[in-house]
Amino acid sequence: MKNVLGREIPERLAERKLRLFEGAFATTPSGRKADRPQKVVKLGENKVLSSIEQAIEKTGLSDGMTISFHHSFRQGDRLVNRVIDTCARMGIKDLRIFPTALFPVHEPLIRHIENGVITRIEGSMNGPVGAFVSQGGKLKDPAVLRSHGGRWRAVEAGDVKIDVAFIGAPQADPYGNANGINGKTPCGPISFSAVDAMYAERTVVVTNDLAPYPVYPFEIQQGWTDYVVVVDEIGDPDSIASGTLKITRSPTRLRIARLAADAVVASGYLKDGFNFQGGAGGISLAATKFVGEEMAKGGVVAGFAMGGGTKLIVDMLHQGTVRTILDGQAFDLAAIASLRDDPNHVLMDPGHYANYDSRGCSTYMLDAAFLGATEVDLDFNVNVNTHSDGLLLHGIGGHQDVASGSKMTVITIPTLRGRLPVIVDRVTTVTTPGEVVDVIVTERGLAVNPKRKDLAERFQGAGLPVRTLEEIKQEAGGFTQPPRKPIFGDEVIALVEWRDGTIIDTVRRVVGWE
Amino acid sequence: MKNVLGREIPERLAERKLRLFEGAFATTPSGRKADRPQKVVKLGENKVLSSIEQAIEKTGLSDGMTISFHHSFRQGDRLVNRVIDTCARMGIKDLRIFPTALFPVHEPLIRHIENGVITRIEGSMNGPVGAFVSQGGKLKDPAVLRSHGGRWRAVEAGDVKIDVAFIGAPQADPYGNANGINGKTPCGPISFSAVDAMYAERTVVVTNDLAPYPVYPFEIQQGWTDYVVVVDEIGDPDSIASGTLKITRSPTRLRIARLAADAVVASGYLKDGFNFQGGAGGISLAATKFVGEEMAKGGVVAGFAMGGGTKLIVDMLHQGTVRTILDGQAFDLAAIASLRDDPNHVLMDPGHYANYDSRGCSTYMLDAAFLGATEVDLDFNVNVNTHSDGLLLHGIGGHQDVASGSKMTVITIPTLRGRLPVIVDRVTTVTTPGEVVDVIVTERGLAVNPKRKDLAERFQGAGLPVRTLEEIKQEAGGFTQPPRKPIFGDEVIALVEWRDGTIIDTVRRVVGWE
Repeated sequence: MKNVLGREIPERLAERKLRLFEGAFATTPSGRKADRPQKVVKLGENKVLSSIEQAIEKTGLSDGMTISFHHSFRQGDRLVNRVIDTCARMGIKDLRIFPTALFPVHEPLIRHIENGVITRIEGSMNGPVGAFVSQGGKLKDPAVLRSHGGRWRAVEAGDVKIDVAFIGAPQADPYGNANGINGKTPCGPISFSAVDAMYAERTVVVTNDLAPYPVYPFEIQQGWTDYVVVVDEIGDPDSIASGTLKITRSPTRLRIARLAADAVVASGYLKDGFNFQGGAGGISLAATKFVGEEMAKGGVVAGFAMGGGTKLIVDMLHQGTVRTILDGQAFDLAAIASLRDDPNHVLMDPGHYANYDSRGCSTYMLDAAFLGATEVDLDFNVNVNTHSDGLLLHGIGGHQDVASGSKMTVITIPTLRGRLPVIVDRVTTVTTPGEVVDVIVTERGLAVNPKRKDLAERFQGAGLPVRTLEEIKQEAGGFTQPPRKPIFGDEVIALVEWRDGTIIDTVRRVVGWE
Repeated sequence: MKNVLGREIPERLAERKLRLFEGAFATTPSGRKADRPQKVVKLGENKVLSSIEQAIEKTGLSDGMTISFHHSFRQGDRLVNRVIDTCARMGIKDLRIFPTALFPVHEPLIRHIENGVITRIEGSMNGPVGAFVSQGGKLKDPAVLRSHGGRWRAVEAGDVKIDVAFIGAPQADPYGNANGINGKTPCGPISFSAVDAMYAERTVVVTNDLAPYPVYPFEIQQGWTDYVVVVDEIGDPDSIASGTLKITRSPTRLRIARLAADAVVASGYLKDGFNFQGGAGGISLAATKFVGEEMAKGGVVAGFAMGGGTKLIVDMLHQGTVRTILDGQAFDLAAIASLRDDPNHVLMDPGHYANYDSRGCSTYMLDAAFLGATEVDLDFNVNVNTHSDGLLLHGIGGHQDVASGSKMTVITIPTLRGRLPVIVDRVTTVTTPGEVVDVIVTERGLAVNPKRKDLAERFQGAGLPVRTLEEIKQEAGGFTQPPRKPIFGDEVIALVEWRDGTIIDTVRRVVGWE
């Protein structure tokens, strides 16, 4: 079967019949959400356990089950490997893991894929696990990649049934109220796991800081929690940032950021009540900074800035350039402190922020957003999952959610990475369709989606270097070296879901390179 | 059928097969909760409507449907009457209303019961509507009374399916985020309606203060809201208090409060981390004040105080006698201000606080609670719904939830009201079973449930006047005038649910008095 973008999609994933992507807002779900387990903990029952082993025993975790995790500790996570190691030691196999995202720190999972402890993965794979899976023949079923909102939707819709949710919690009380912004090693919001906690058959909060009742804010609630495991370490908050948080110092990238900011200024959206997504990549950060300076200069106050929270937008909040931050994850320690201390820095779960199957997302209120790409193509389609070598190396994050919601979605990219072209005829993988991408900004000028003639006119009126994507691609072509083209096998190693649960693309096994 | 307390219970309520009460924690639910509607609002859709009429049209509200409301404005509510008047004007009839509670201000609903606009009521009835229903022959099915937690449970379990939820919101944004602690006329938490918003087929937020996006805290979320109606008035916050908030000045009642406080001191529970429920009745307030003084004297810091929030416990929070307030409703404006300004005054929805069908309630963490009664009997059963004249005049509130959770549940009552006895052989209606009542404190001494020999010994050791309920009853008997005994008809006019969804008692029609 081919979807509306001409991408070949299989009919089924195990028992699940797949639906084809038909457009960013083509799906109108009806019927009912999945039901949640009806369970009680009665007066006087104790939930506190002293080890992961005990939690595995108590929850009845066994072969073939699905277990879930959040990624709020990012590269500092210590929980996923530990739980899987423990499962392996206890002889449990054939697990489907359902993390929000994996990072290079999770490379040890490769061994557990090889030995059959893990046979399926639904979740983002940033780095080595994705590269390993790309080789093909590793998993029983294709991996499934989802956006932040798409993952929440999938649980609520019953597409993924979680047997046991493991939730790393920097602070928890003995009854299972927990959050990520307090405690000995705060990692920022853990509300990614709220939907897991509500829908899983069993919910296990794992904490290194058991505090007296009640622990609040209630990101995870007692009413959803079966057990609380106390361990010595769940993660290293110094590794949250993953090195993404430096404003770029590259002159090329600064030029892109400047142009992106100028585009926002010229767009007409930058007025009181302007709502924007900051982003955490080097170019996005710089662009956000420039926009903030324009706002301060013009006396414009934003309605809200959407996180991932960073020191940059926290400073804007404190300076009064931003009225509110809505935040689902923290990218640095300043954002965590602000979530804790500033009532206008508001915790928001991914359901609120991005769930397609809801009566409206916060992303739909965005005026402008800066997002990245590994590749873009002449139809404005964006790839953030694979590189031009075909390897699956990144998750979707909020890319689809933000791009589809924001009135002006700006993709900021250099035309070259090393000597590889970033603008291509056809992206290796479509993560986000061109229909929701408005502007692509490069160091050689900016290209406007033909749907947005209004923006093109405004940019031209402001004297910005508006060009076609073809022109930019061609000009950059003089400096590129043809990329090492992957040879794909037949095996689909991953499905890329659009945020409504349809399949927008697949990733195929890489058998070699031309 | 008779339940374990010997109370006669009908087998069915319309299509719903009734379950008999078997004990406070006898029920172990399994299976699944009810499913929620799968609905989307897509990018760019507008939710704002300009009138209740328009909301009724848009939601398709029609004959036979169930509509719900919260009671956070209490006696100041302006929404319920207005919605029902509008329905009546539009020719809609046969409605089942599902308010959290009705107050005397809702007396105009009687006309709508008489003319068939309202044919069923599930919800607390404080005052005239209850008295009217007590006459019999007014409703198609018996009314159903539930506790705060019991109502939440009933929605989640699918016992009550809501067609349209109307949620009065002192502040809302155009996307349907709303709360009760901000805005022009704040009424305190409106999270009673959160479960309605999540489960109703259609959710309508009605506000008199439409503020720029985003409005937070998110008591009601955009993702649950179909429409936002802007009107000029939803309620009068000056009427929230309903006159319940004065510390008693009656010497008899002060004596009861003093003795209740002394019992807490003697109980052994009053140490660091002590958790208590304050209450808002005159005796409870005084008892709370006395306990607070003991805590301050002894340097004891409470873990949490549970609201209804009052200035009294807010003062304790600010003085450092209480670490946290967990609050589901506000009884005065000081509590609302504190909810807004103090991060340790924490909003809590009734699901968190009291839902039996959850993995644990906040009430289960209580050490002590002061509660009232209209009658108690020699088995320690408590009635808060009817008076000895048989009329249904009060709701359950959190009585069942708190009594069943607290380690030491203290009922504070005078032995006489006017010349009517409060301690009786058998309560007219059982709201809360004796098995969860520990101590009954009167101006003639205190009685301890025989199950709690430990407490009786401690009280005796502290020199408190421990007596049997029989003794107290007999002594008071010398001053009473036999109550005007109601003559009950066969018709069951109301069912009293225990918090687990079983039926603990019924209320019958009053056909006259002996």
